[in-house]
Amino acid sequence: MHFHLQEAIEVLERTPQALALFLSGLSAGWLQSNEGEGTWTVTQVVDHFIEAERTNWIPRLEFILQEGEGKPFPPFDRFAHLGKKDDASVERKLEQFKELRALSIAKLLERMSEEKLLECTGYHPAFGVVKARELISTWVAHDLTHIAQIARIMAKRYSADVGPWKAYLGILK
Amino acid sequence: MHFHLQEAIEVLERTPQALALFLSGLSAGWLQSNEGEGTWTVTQVVDHFIEAERTNWIPRLEFILQEGEGKPFPPFDRFAHLGKKDDASVERKLEQFKELRALSIAKLLERMSEEKLLECTGYHPAFGVVKARELISTWVAHDLTHIAQIARIMAKRYSADVGPWKAYLGILK
Repeated sequence: MHFHLQEAIEVLERTPQALALFLSGLSAGWLQSNEGEGTWTVTQVVDHFIEAERTNWIPRLEFILQEGEGKPFPPFDRFAHLGKKDDASVERKLEQFKELRALSIAKLLERMSEEKLLECTGYHPAFGVVKARELISTWVAHDLTHIAQIARIMAKRYSADVGPWKAYLGILK
Repeated sequence: MHFHLQEAIEVLERTPQALALFLSGLSAGWLQSNEGEGTWTVTQVVDHFIEAERTNWIPRLEFILQEGEGKPFPPFDRFAHLGKKDDASVERKLEQFKELRALSIAKLLERMSEEKLLECTGYHPAFGVVKARELISTWVAHDLTHIAQIARIMAKRYSADVGPWKAYLGILK
C-alpha cells in the first residue's frame, strides 16, 4: 500500500495543468482523432474528466461521509458526456476542468481534515463496502488511465505513418 | 496516412514542457516507482528521453540525408541510459530534455526545409528501407508511448490502494 493523501493530491493538482499544456493549440486532427468506431476522441476524454469531476469524485466522497454503508451510492454513468453537446474549444474545456479540479481539491482537504476520515466506509452498488481512501486512490489512477488513453489515441493516429517501426511500438497494437 | 511535419512538431514541442509540469516537484515515491523487477522508474523514462534525443532522432535523420540507402544506420541502444549514473534531480533532467528538444526541432526544420526531403530514404539495420517521414512519425509515437508508460507506472503504484475498483481500471492489469 502506498496511499498518502498529500501524494495523491500532487497528482490530482497537476493533471489539468499538464493536459492544458499538452493539448492547447493542437490541430483538430489530433483532438478529433480516436481509436476507431465506438471509441473516444481526445476531446471526449476531456469531456469525461469534466463529467467525473462534477458527478463522481467529491459527490461520492460526501455520500460516504453522510450515508456510510447504509445506502449504496448512485452509479456513475461513465458515458454521460457522450450524450451532451458541447462545442466549446478544448482550451475552454481544459480551463473549466482546471477550475473544477481546484474546487474538488479544496473540498477534499476540507472533508479529509483528519487522517482517520480516510478509513470511512461507504457501499458501492457493484463492489459492496469501500473506503474513502480507496475512492481517492481510484481518482488518481483514473486520472493516469485517461492521460495514458490520450497518449495512446494520439499515437495510433500515426499507426500507418511510422512504417516498419510499428513493430517496435507496442502502443500501436 | 496522417503525417504533416507541422502537426508532428506540435506534439514534439509540447512533450518536455508537459512532462516538466507533470513531474516537477513530485514526491520520490512517484518518481522512483516502477512496474516491478526489470522495469523502468519514471525517472529512468526521463533518462531514456534524453538519451534518445542525443543519439537517435536527429542523428538518424542526418544519417539518412547523408548516406541514403547505401549504409545501414548504427542501431540505437534503447537501454543505454540504464548503464549511466546520473544523480541530477528530475527537474534538472527535464530542463535538459527541454533544451535538447528545442535544438532538435530547430535542426528538424532546417534539415526538412522542403517537403520532398521527407521522402528521403535510409537503411535500417533490421527493417531495410525507411523514409525520413517514417522516422519523424516514429519520434512522435515514441514520445506518446513513453508518456503513456509514465502514467501507467504511476497508476500501478496504487494497484492495491484502489481496492475493489481495480476491476474497472484496465491500466492496472
